[in-house]
Amino acid sequence: MQISLTETAAELKAHERIVLTAHVNPDGDAIGSSLGLMHALKALGKEVQVFIDDDIPAAFSVLPGYELIGKPEEGQNIPADLLVAVDVSLDRIGRVNEAVKAPTLNIDHHITNDGKADKLYLDGNAAATAEIIYQLIEELGAPCTQEMAMCLYTGLAMDTGWFRFSNTTPNTMRVAAALLACGAQPHVISEALEQRPFAEVQSLAFALQKIELLAGGKVAGICLDHASLQEHEAPEGLIGMVRVIEGVDIAFTLKEKEPGLCRVSLRSKGVDVTKIALQFGGGGHVRAAGCTIEKPCAEARIELVKAIMQVLEETA
Amino acid sequence: MQISLTETAAELKAHERIVLTAHVNPDGDAIGSSLGLMHALKALGKEVQVFIDDDIPAAFSVLPGYELIGKPEEGQNIPADLLVAVDVSLDRIGRVNEAVKAPTLNIDHHITNDGKADKLYLDGNAAATAEIIYQLIEELGAPCTQEMAMCLYTGLAMDTGWFRFSNTTPNTMRVAAALLACGAQPHVISEALEQRPFAEVQSLAFALQKIELLAGGKVAGICLDHASLQEHEAPEGLIGMVRVIEGVDIAFTLKEKEPGLCRVSLRSKGVDVTKIALQFGGGGHVRAAGCTIEKPCAEARIELVKAIMQVLEETA
Repeated sequence: MQISLTETAAELKAHERIVLTAHVNPDGDAIGSSLGLMHALKALGKEVQVFIDDDIPAAFSVLPGYELIGKPEEGQNIPADLLVAVDVSLDRIGRVNEAVKAPTLNIDHHITNDGKADKLYLDGNAAATAEIIYQLIEELGAPCTQEMAMCLYTGLAMDTGWFRFSNTTPNTMRVAAALLACGAQPHVISEALEQRPFAEVQSLAFALQKIELLAGGKVAGICLDHASLQEHEAPEGLIGMVRVIEGVDIAFTLKEKEPGLCRVSLRSKGVDVTKIALQFGGGGHVRAAGCTIEKPCAEARIELVKAIMQVLEETA
Repeated sequence: MQISLTETAAELKAHERIVLTAHVNPDGDAIGSSLGLMHALKALGKEVQVFIDDDIPAAFSVLPGYELIGKPEEGQNIPADLLVAVDVSLDRIGRVNEAVKAPTLNIDHHITNDGKADKLYLDGNAAATAEIIYQLIEELGAPCTQEMAMCLYTGLAMDTGWFRFSNTTPNTMRVAAALLACGAQPHVISEALEQRPFAEVQSLAFALQKIELLAGGKVAGICLDHASLQEHEAPEGLIGMVRVIEGVDIAFTLKEKEPGLCRVSLRSKGVDVTKIALQFGGGGHVRAAGCTIEKPCAEARIELVKAIMQVLEETA
């Protein structure tokens, strides 16, 4: 059942022992929103615990309350009056589902939310769940503290690519302004979250040396065969480095994850790359798509490039 | 003479033929602030021209009005009633100084402003000159248009590193919110400004392969000798890629710009790197300093590393 923000606040006020959770493979918005809400509910005198069924990357230790995040154990029973899932549908909270037997309240900004929680507050216009949580905290009448602000600013920054994606709205910025006034320190957050292991920087250097330009510079890509990937893991966000090359419309990466099995990512600045992905049984959006090609790297590359060229010709 | 924002608006209203300028080697704030103010003054019926004594990087063509920016020619005489210099002191506007014989109004956020203009509005708390320009436009009563908003959002984003540096304030974000409401499109700005030439990506790959870790991972650096730099220009912001390596406190780059002449950049997360730079006659801030060592690359590297280790030991 979908409820309003005021009803969401009332629901939280009506319960004492509250468990907060977010999705497995948690990102900055999942972690920041959980911890931000935790701080608010603690300030209101609630007994609050945060459980996420995954390891939390150490970089997030910059967020106040990081050390309080628990990971449910096999067969664990976590007593609670209310389970609150943020930034997620209930099907992606892992073991927390079995560990907590309580009514469920769901707070999310993904319009793909499955709506299976007992009560759901969904705002698809919010750039991040953290944007909703800030408004909820105002509704709850909880104080805006620096610890809360650090957590929620992280959520906003991560889900908007530091306020540069098209989901960034005037309201996102008004919330960010309020969080700065409460003491959020963006430079501390960015310094912590932008740390990279030395091995990843080395892998990036290795991968970038393999960029090839095709179609007179309209297409650029990187192919990493299985042997290369054994030596250098593909760095995160690699395709972003290909996409920014001047004049490139279609960017791709092809990674032979297992011998004879290649994962392909596609990005474009105009051309509909789903047309390419669909040919290999994949899918996605106009400007970001992906697929898997069950061939060794060199063969997969030839087929992929052929498909790209074809779509490029059709579009021209 | 320092004046108030209201007086600045009155000064602009009192003149008809206005030339706007900014510093040579212009960045996003210089260009965005000039063009943003140009749009406002045009809307008020003023005769406005923008002259900057430099080439404007093509990436900035995403800013409405880019094509209107002129570059003064040798001996040119540009008639005007008022010369307005934004984001700069008058000593860094190049030929515009001689080309425009008119009273000067200066609008800036650098506390190092030399105060030599006839009238100066200085706000050292503004993260960007664009933040001041937005407030000035409100004061002028000019309409907030999408073209203006695109220009000023760019200024804000560039001078705050997309809202992550410590100069980002609640007011910065409130201005950003207003600009989004006027139609600023951050994703369009970031897509345009983050383009990189293919050669620069290749240079980055080349340079990153040369990273060395020292002092058990507390120090990381890249040395590029003169021959390497002839082949691969050092990419912009290279030291930033070194600084983000996990565990690194001191990051350095050493570039042999001419045979026997090395430029050194230093960054730290704690240690006072001016102590290193000063030993070679350089200077800077605690966390960002630089110097020049007049030795060939290999020798300069040995001396620099020795100085770094010494300062690291003293600090430990």
